[in-house]
Amino acid sequence: MTKNFPDMQGPACPVPLQHKKKVVLGHGSGGQMSQDLIASMFLPPFDNPYLRANDDAGVVGVILDQGFGEEISGRLAISTDSHVVWPLFFPGGDIGRLAVCGTVNDVAMMGATPNYLTAGFILEEGLNFEVLEKVVGSMHDAALEANITIIAGDTKVVQKGKADLLYINTTGIGIVPPGLEISGANAQPGDIVILSGSIGDHGIAVLEARQELGFTSGIQSDIAPLNHLVNAILNVSNQVHTMRDPTRGGLATSLNEIARQSKVCIFLEENSIPIKPGVAAACEILGFDPLFIANEGKLIVIVGRDDADNVIEAMHAERYGEEAVIIGEVKPEPQSRVLMRTPIGSTRVVGILSGEMLPRIC
Amino acid sequence: MTKNFPDMQGPACPVPLQHKKKVVLGHGSGGQMSQDLIASMFLPPFDNPYLRANDDAGVVGVILDQGFGEEISGRLAISTDSHVVWPLFFPGGDIGRLAVCGTVNDVAMMGATPNYLTAGFILEEGLNFEVLEKVVGSMHDAALEANITIIAGDTKVVQKGKADLLYINTTGIGIVPPGLEISGANAQPGDIVILSGSIGDHGIAVLEARQELGFTSGIQSDIAPLNHLVNAILNVSNQVHTMRDPTRGGLATSLNEIARQSKVCIFLEENSIPIKPGVAAACEILGFDPLFIANEGKLIVIVGRDDADNVIEAMHAERYGEEAVIIGEVKPEPQSRVLMRTPIGSTRVVGILSGEMLPRIC
Repeated sequence: MTKNFPDMQGPACPVPLQHKKKVVLGHGSGGQMSQDLIASMFLPPFDNPYLRANDDAGVVGVILDQGFGEEISGRLAISTDSHVVWPLFFPGGDIGRLAVCGTVNDVAMMGATPNYLTAGFILEEGLNFEVLEKVVGSMHDAALEANITIIAGDTKVVQKGKADLLYINTTGIGIVPPGLEISGANAQPGDIVILSGSIGDHGIAVLEARQELGFTSGIQSDIAPLNHLVNAILNVSNQVHTMRDPTRGGLATSLNEIARQSKVCIFLEENSIPIKPGVAAACEILGFDPLFIANEGKLIVIVGRDDADNVIEAMHAERYGEEAVIIGEVKPEPQSRVLMRTPIGSTRVVGILSGEMLPRIC
Repeated sequence: MTKNFPDMQGPACPVPLQHKKKVVLGHGSGGQMSQDLIASMFLPPFDNPYLRANDDAGVVGVILDQGFGEEISGRLAISTDSHVVWPLFFPGGDIGRLAVCGTVNDVAMMGATPNYLTAGFILEEGLNFEVLEKVVGSMHDAALEANITIIAGDTKVVQKGKADLLYINTTGIGIVPPGLEISGANAQPGDIVILSGSIGDHGIAVLEARQELGFTSGIQSDIAPLNHLVNAILNVSNQVHTMRDPTRGGLATSLNEIARQSKVCIFLEENSIPIKPGVAAACEILGFDPLFIANEGKLIVIVGRDDADNVIEAMHAERYGEEAVIIGEVKPEPQSRVLMRTPIGSTRVVGILSGEMLPRIC
């Protein structure tokens, strides 16, 4: 490789640590290292208000020229995700369902209706057609469930050993209803924090498929398209300030992002956070904190206090919101922090995922 | 080279070979095998009019609810491409410039103004930060030149040996001006076929970087954002029926696609197709046909005969259209065929790329 980079053989880099110079798995964790990489590598050259917003999807203005000099403006929410989950199939889902739902959800978290999806495949030479067929079938089923149309695609093939069977990028485009201002930066002191269901299911299901658990947890991934749930929420409240799906980095990382963006404190009641026994057991054995485990079918809603009951009720009527619960509230201080009251009544700081926990979880 | 063309060795083997069951490099060629894969694997489950249109970008309707019950509709052109070019750097460009320009061009070919771009990175563990920085810098420069904003991104990291340094998916979104109907299906008998410049530069530049030429061709990749050129063309003609950038599969494959979509004959004058001496020499030595070599900064315009001179003149005033020439015309018969008059006056059928020629060219 060096022969292609004669201009890179200059003075030795004074920085001694390998992770300062090379990409490591932790840069894909969704936690602090991912955020550092984005802040140092991508934001400086690409800087613009859409990226700086640091939300699940970029919300951009579009102006439709109607001809005759009339111009109408609106807003699109656009999100992209490359999916590299390993293995491709795991209890409750596969990379195909993940690729559709992951992006549908990111668009939906802005309050937008996900209308269109693109799909870009990177296939490894030698991949069995049956595997691809199965994955594509899952994408079809998930797209049908989410009521989204796959409108453009691309297929690339790389030599054997240059990928891991297949990777799928999806990009979703949705229309943001007028007047809606949902963002990680909009959580307000006094708001109520709602979680749509139990945490950690996806991460533990993938670990089980990797045979890294050492026992059978019975846990299925929670992968699901959440756009219909989002619709139900928005139908009953115009005080929804923030929505986010806690994927890579888990609930703790997403809440920390929101606390920082909104400059508020998010105060949790540990007892109220639903965790399935199989997830709790797996975390106990492996030494993981379920707050950092990835979810793919859960959402956080931060809503004005007066609307919380209505939102919970609406969520309970939806397939993917049946177990929705209030897990905490938003306080003014200490800013940019997530605190949690433990079952014994003490309060602890909940941090952000700092390194890599489970590589290639999505 | 012949080992890459098992299906070109005379009579086809009647027995379904391995490539019927497994993905092979030819499925990523952009030629017949890619089209077969799309037709058999992706179209049946995902079928919809946008994909069936088989254009460079999906053109979809959007309805912007203006509140107060007023709804306004418009059209977006959306295209996605994963970029796996190897090596990452080559004469005239790199994967970063390619990732921006490739998608900008696909959106522009629908006559749309490319406004927004997403970028999804798959990074291999161990990738040097300097390499990533250089690639990201190229993306920035290309985005600036194309006047497109990168509004959403994603980074995944896979273990060493599960990628080849880095892959980049980009998805582009543009607005289609009202009234414009540009498509591969709109070429009309009598139309003139214009090409913006010499063919094969990108493919040969990448081969040179792979040190597969055995000599120094001096050829630089032609990677360029073509949206400003497209604007210039549309400013002088409302008779532009088709535009396409002949990337993977080369000029021959793109013209065959158009001939099939429009059910017309495209008739070329071989003498009129510009080929740089370095490209011609490389093709001669390697046994390649430059008609099948990838381009990344060229476009085909098919325009009503009366507007051809105006279009050529407008193209000549643009940086990436200085060498624009008429290369042929559209005839009614034989339908779905590309024919070419050779320098000695005979006429030959120009086919579509059937196997894999140069893997990972983009």
